[in-house]
Amino acid sequence: MAKNHYPFQIDTEITVKKGDQIFLNRKRISLIKNIRYSGSILSASKTMKMSYQQAWTFIKEMNDLSPLPIVIRQRGGSNGGGAVITPYGLELIEKYMRMEQMQGEYLTSLNEILDTCFL
Amino acid sequence: MAKNHYPFQIDTEITVKKGDQIFLNRKRISLIKNIRYSGSILSASKTMKMSYQQAWTFIKEMNDLSPLPIVIRQRGGSNGGGAVITPYGLELIEKYMRMEQMQGEYLTSLNEILDTCFL
Repeated sequence: MAKNHYPFQIDTEITVKKGDQIFLNRKRISLIKNIRYSGSILSASKTMKMSYQQAWTFIKEMNDLSPLPIVIRQRGGSNGGGAVITPYGLELIEKYMRMEQMQGEYLTSLNEILDTCFL
Repeated sequence: MAKNHYPFQIDTEITVKKGDQIFLNRKRISLIKNIRYSGSILSASKTMKMSYQQAWTFIKEMNDLSPLPIVIRQRGGSNGGGAVITPYGLELIEKYMRMEQMQGEYLTSLNEILDTCFL
């Protein structure tokens, strides 16, 4: 979400909060996506270069704030247990991505209106 | 920039970057504003509960990326020297605040369109 024909680019990160607590942001959505593709919290945390503990803290915070579960851990199996994203979690990813897309379109007009080349 | 009649609120932070480097964000604008009001980097850093070193690093990064100076240090005087915000710096504050205001208005429609109650 940046414009390249100005020396400066505007970027915005959408954060969904409950009071002071972060529910969703770019990093957390990326974590959910990575868990979805790998089926594993450990593997997703490695991809994102964060510790397993950090990834698990994010997941716990999201699940605790959420009206419905987002990530469900599955114990056992040959790979020592994995994790799946619930249909509600998949819906959140989609909604967040739609918001980012809309935001991106809006930024184009913001750039044009304000002529934010800062020169 | 949050809506209160949903259990979740959407918040967006506008970041102005040059490549990977941050030029302006909410914290940096707040720092410039505080320096403007106090006339002192030390005093502004205390208000914002950051170290003088951190405040100075932010200022240096902004000044280095900027086509024109934003903060100018003034040495000497009874208070051991202060700092002033240039007219260009004041213009940046205003532009950033206008962008945040426009963004806030936009978020209202974003909320309405997506019905982001996440329930």
